[in-house]
Amino acid sequence: MADSEALPSLAGDSVAVEALLRAVFGVVVDEAIQKGTSASQKVCEWKEPEELKQLLDLELRSQGESQEQILERCRAVIRYSVKTGHPRFFNQLFSGLDPHALAGRIITESLNTSQYTYEIAPVFVLMEEEVLRKLRALVGWSSGDGIFCPGGSISNMYAVNLARYQRYPDCKQRGLRTLPPLALFTSKECHYSIQKGAAFLGLGTDSVRVVKADERGKMVPDDLERQIGMAEAEGAVPFLVSATSGTTVLGAFDPLEAIADVCQRHGLWLHVDAAWGGSVLLSQTHRHLLDGIQRADSVAWNPHKLLAAGLQCSALLLQDSSNLLKRCHGSQASYLFQQDKFYDVALDTGDKVVQCGRRVDCLKLWLMWKAQGDQGLERRIDQAFALARYLVEEIKKREGLELVMEPEFLNVCFWFVPPSLRGKQDSPDYHQRLSKVAPVLKERMVKEGSMMIGYQPHGPRGNFFRVVVANPALTCADMDFLLNELERLGQDL
Amino acid sequence: MADSEALPSLAGDSVAVEALLRAVFGVVVDEAIQKGTSASQKVCEWKEPEELKQLLDLELRSQGESQEQILERCRAVIRYSVKTGHPRFFNQLFSGLDPHALAGRIITESLNTSQYTYEIAPVFVLMEEEVLRKLRALVGWSSGDGIFCPGGSISNMYAVNLARYQRYPDCKQRGLRTLPPLALFTSKECHYSIQKGAAFLGLGTDSVRVVKADERGKMVPDDLERQIGMAEAEGAVPFLVSATSGTTVLGAFDPLEAIADVCQRHGLWLHVDAAWGGSVLLSQTHRHLLDGIQRADSVAWNPHKLLAAGLQCSALLLQDSSNLLKRCHGSQASYLFQQDKFYDVALDTGDKVVQCGRRVDCLKLWLMWKAQGDQGLERRIDQAFALARYLVEEIKKREGLELVMEPEFLNVCFWFVPPSLRGKQDSPDYHQRLSKVAPVLKERMVKEGSMMIGYQPHGPRGNFFRVVVANPALTCADMDFLLNELERLGQDL
Repeated sequence: MADSEALPSLAGDSVAVEALLRAVFGVVVDEAIQKGTSASQKVCEWKEPEELKQLLDLELRSQGESQEQILERCRAVIRYSVKTGHPRFFNQLFSGLDPHALAGRIITESLNTSQYTYEIAPVFVLMEEEVLRKLRALVGWSSGDGIFCPGGSISNMYAVNLARYQRYPDCKQRGLRTLPPLALFTSKECHYSIQKGAAFLGLGTDSVRVVKADERGKMVPDDLERQIGMAEAEGAVPFLVSATSGTTVLGAFDPLEAIADVCQRHGLWLHVDAAWGGSVLLSQTHRHLLDGIQRADSVAWNPHKLLAAGLQCSALLLQDSSNLLKRCHGSQASYLFQQDKFYDVALDTGDKVVQCGRRVDCLKLWLMWKAQGDQGLERRIDQAFALARYLVEEIKKREGLELVMEPEFLNVCFWFVPPSLRGKQDSPDYHQRLSKVAPVLKERMVKEGSMMIGYQPHGPRGNFFRVVVANPALTCADMDFLLNELERLGQDL
Repeated sequence: MADSEALPSLAGDSVAVEALLRAVFGVVVDEAIQKGTSASQKVCEWKEPEELKQLLDLELRSQGESQEQILERCRAVIRYSVKTGHPRFFNQLFSGLDPHALAGRIITESLNTSQYTYEIAPVFVLMEEEVLRKLRALVGWSSGDGIFCPGGSISNMYAVNLARYQRYPDCKQRGLRTLPPLALFTSKECHYSIQKGAAFLGLGTDSVRVVKADERGKMVPDDLERQIGMAEAEGAVPFLVSATSGTTVLGAFDPLEAIADVCQRHGLWLHVDAAWGGSVLLSQTHRHLLDGIQRADSVAWNPHKLLAAGLQCSALLLQDSSNLLKRCHGSQASYLFQQDKFYDVALDTGDKVVQCGRRVDCLKLWLMWKAQGDQGLERRIDQAFALARYLVEEIKKREGLELVMEPEFLNVCFWFVPPSLRGKQDSPDYHQRLSKVAPVLKERMVKEGSMMIGYQPHGPRGNFFRVVVANPALTCADMDFLLNELERLGQDL
């Protein structure tokens, strides 16, 4: 078997490899990039799961398939996938298709390396350092550390783990059983990853003390102070506060200066989950929303959200310059992080993380930034704020649309009140009936493929829509379309 | 500002977007795919960090750059990156460039969605399920569960977290402080992620009991039994054994049947870290190496390694069918996992994980599998074994090459004994001097760009080379080159 020929398939046949990839790339350009971002096309092509299974013929079989069949499969995958770069996709905190970021992602995939050593990722070790330095500078730090994580949830977990390690370095070896009960604090509007992280890290969800938020969704510093006192009275040791810059539903910014004051008074680690709102730091006009962030110990910031860098691009930034990341997570595997290398092994950054192999997440952001400059990215942020403001003003003008609140960010939350419920606010089942409207409209828009908007309940409030205005290709016409389409879809309700 | 025009840059200009992406793709094809996999080109272009920083001009500035500048940057990034698809890249447990997998990755990037709900990832929710089903079937399970994780280290952590949750469901809420001290068991040859995971999960590295391995690197079941007894005698509660199928350095397979017997006797969760060796299950000839794996509770398997699916493609497979993943990790975020959707919300698999956004890792594997079939992938595995065998036999024929042991897998470990040390085995400083050879040769090969092979110390053994034979494009000629090149580089030592 070990003859001198490579395998059949395409291994080693560079002409066939190139032909295949050029053909697939043609499909990608036509179907995903051109049609996928064109307002004249559907944003999604809804199929029921059972029908979609049939259409995709997912089963993996013994025999391989021809190139023609493979190309047809590529077309089908794209056809039935949601077009998150489409101007009518308002469903998540990410959207849009930045061509430079996509170019960076394609290069990343073609190079297929892992971000653990300078030896096998020389360009990306240096590039990650530079990108993180730039993000830290926007936070307001001239030194520090950081790392790209597989998503903001894991960035948040890192912050919690670092904070407990800094206070109790022994816990790395001896575990939590030797520590007093710990308490961390976050508002009820925080992302659910704080709870998930507390469970995963062995602290338990009970260790998360939920601080009140005001009617705008912002953490109430006085209640934070009160909760810290309560935790201490119960014998727990407060160690971290996780504030949020840009909450998931309402887009609220916690008052960082006041929270930092509380943290300073009590000697607590201040983490800022700015996964969504961090990119506002690029805007001279709006960055005041994050005033005080430079007082944080750690910041989670996901450029794959508002900057459209592509999933995933999640930075954890640290003010610490004492190599805390490596001390907390390192285990000095001798097969990978040999100490007798011929270059400075401080460049082997892989031991800073709890992963071993780690994807390259810096290139897509770096390349986009090189193409846009700070100025281009700042214009995007400012434009998104302006479009959100335009949408809000249009909502106010129209009958049957009711804002949940004046947004301070790009989450525009509102109810569509259908004709049959208008003027019936005093009816006893009004709220119950109103809450059923968004799911119905969602089903209709998805089945038509005309647009996608998220909805959710929120505390005592029933379901309302949350439009996220982030895609850099959006215009006022898209905002008008969105409202007209809601009216059209809901006119018989 | 909120005028009806999209931003400058390329947003909304579909002609310019297409032109940019076609130009970048041309660079990728020429530089990364053609030259990057050609034996006539260098595998790496070594630069000292300071020089590389200058060459790359990494700084992110206020002004954006022209398309011509951006294309030049793309060329530079590729030029100075290591070519992991090159036939002379033997440095890691991943290598090679599978064109169908790369096609899947490019489509994934162009669609840029997150694997949390059927709503925004209908194709990939169903596809992930089918791919996991296929992998489970190869393990020997007709039912079960699973999920793709951001790397094998996190898969291993998941297994540990699931095992402790299954035994102590309270720990999700109440944390580890309410539990007795826990103990998990793995061999001294296991991957370092087990230690990292124990620290991250709050168990502490002390909870990891290190079981002896035999001279081939395989866990010794009798010592496992002994360690369990010792842990219990110390008041700890054993809960998990992590066996390894394909250790990192030696490529050893732990004896799963015997280990499963021990686990059964003591009621312990059996996890198999088959990140590297799992793909051998595709080979009828070699799958006996994993006999007993069907008795595991969980298996970590990274198709980005031996199957060359591309970083990252890491499956965690579970025998459990009781929705343990979702119970252990779920937090029912109401903004994302609404219960009043118009489709079966069991399809919203995102609450199975501790991440929120999660990359699509199934398409690249699925598309490659469709193109190759089981048969094509099996031939790859068998060919890799045959080439490793060829390399071993060639090593035995040559003077100055000494096998560390007969490999049972694709890790071929050996010393290069330079001319000045041949016949001097009895000299007192022989081992010390031999250990210094690999780092010198590594520096020479990297600086010439002729090939890349990893080396490491290993217990009392000094540095030796570990050649990983995995790239499906390899031939015997590449094996011959490798040995000739070592002799050439080391002839003056």
